Amino acid sequence: MTIEEAIDMAGQVQAAVDWIEVGTSLIKEFGMESVRRIKEAFPDKVIVADIKTNDNARYEFELCYRAGADVATVMASAPDATLDLCMQTAQSHGGIIMIDLLNVTPQRVEELQRYTEAVLCQHVSKDQQEHHGQTLGGQSIPDPQQQDTHSIDSDSTQAARPSIAAAGGITLDTLPSILQDRPAVVIVGSAITKAAHPAAAAREIRSRITEVMQAMQKGAYHV
Amino acid sequence: MTIEEAIDMAGQVQAAVDWIEVGTSLIKEFGMESVRRIKEAFPDKVIVADIKTNDNARYEFELCYRAGADVATVMASAPDATLDLCMQTAQSHGGIIMIDLLNVTPQRVEELQRYTEAVLCQHVSKDQQEHHGQTLGGQSIPDPQQQDTHSIDSDSTQAARPSIAAAGGITLDTLPSILQDRPAVVIVGSAITKAAHPAAAAREIRSRITEVMQAMQKGAYHV
Repeated sequence: MTIEEAIDMAGQVQAAVDWIEVGTSLIKEFGMESVRRIKEAFPDKVIVADIKTNDNARYEFELCYRAGADVATVMASAPDATLDLCMQTAQSHGGIIMIDLLNVTPQRVEELQRYTEAVLCQHVSKDQQEHHGQTLGGQSIPDPQQQDTHSIDSDSTQAARPSIAAAGGITLDTLPSILQDRPAVVIVGSAITKAAHPAAAAREIRSRITEVMQAMQKGAYHV
Repeated sequence: MTIEEAIDMAGQVQAAVDWIEVGTSLIKEFGMESVRRIKEAFPDKVIVADIKTNDNARYEFELCYRAGADVATVMASAPDATLDLCMQTAQSHGGIIMIDLLNVTPQRVEELQRYTEAVLCQHVSKDQQEHHGQTLGGQSIPDPQQQDTHSIDSDSTQAARPSIAAAGGITLDTLPSILQDRPAVVIVGSAITKAAHPAAAAREIRSRITEVMQAMQKGAYHV
């Protein structure tokens, strides 16, 4: 996909989406130009630079925020020094940090709860989906209320927690199960971009999210 | 650093180096254009695209090899599905795969011994060096001969093993200790690029490597 094709695709679906993610491979193929041009084309959307930083955190996160990204991503498998620097750089630029939980242990996910300002992204990768048939689910982030029972300040039921995002092969059918974890962000790729009618697919997914969330608030929806 | 500056730097030191690594952040800033132009400028060097793949392995590795890279890198923390696809893509393009061992467990390093065609790169990241003062050493890959005593085919002392590379803050002073692991590849960054005289620094490092390796072959060098 070229930058032009990415802009065209985002343009088709923009009415139904809040965030637009500039994918890792687009960044690696075309550099920060991809982030810059997508932010220019959609200045009112939240732009995610899925840069998947592993090192050189300050430099890479500054690249993203300066190119117009609102959110930049770092791998949960990166050293703590890198995560700390990503956090600092996000704060100093008024940006958001999303930590990609790809292929890390539950223990690592637990450690990362201390990044209360971050978005933690549950992620089943493209390669895992295509070659092992894995999907999201069965590896949920523990329920925040359950976590509170063994968190340090267990007296507080309002303990700050990172937000949750979910990504990786999400479809209309898997959405209800994904939404049980009450993610703040749902990242949908090929179910929109490879649909015969991307705009219609995005609208349907948006409607389904609203419908399931409303039912859950009323306590009427269980998977 | 721009692509032009990277080409200028590589030009200064080329007589003393065999491989030229196109850094992760250069790729993320300028895309595959960085790999293409550096291969064009140095067609006879082995070009490493340090793309640090975490997912979308086939796509990213093909980008690298098509842009002229001889070696492409993948994170050891990536799912096995991704590593397997990197391996397949490397083989079908006649390329080399280097697996970056950044921040993984000794158990993971042991698992990766099955990628006998790969180069395993011991890596202390820039962020770890600068913020925790970590250096290479104390986290060596176990000695191949020791490993043989508990490998599956322990009868064979000639069991195929991945090659070893070492990277991360290596200097003239730390070289002798690094070389104890007999790496096939030593990757030196700032000790060359930030030296007052990069060409002289590269030559000195090259000489030191030759000198230490010769002494080790004679059994005369111990740290």
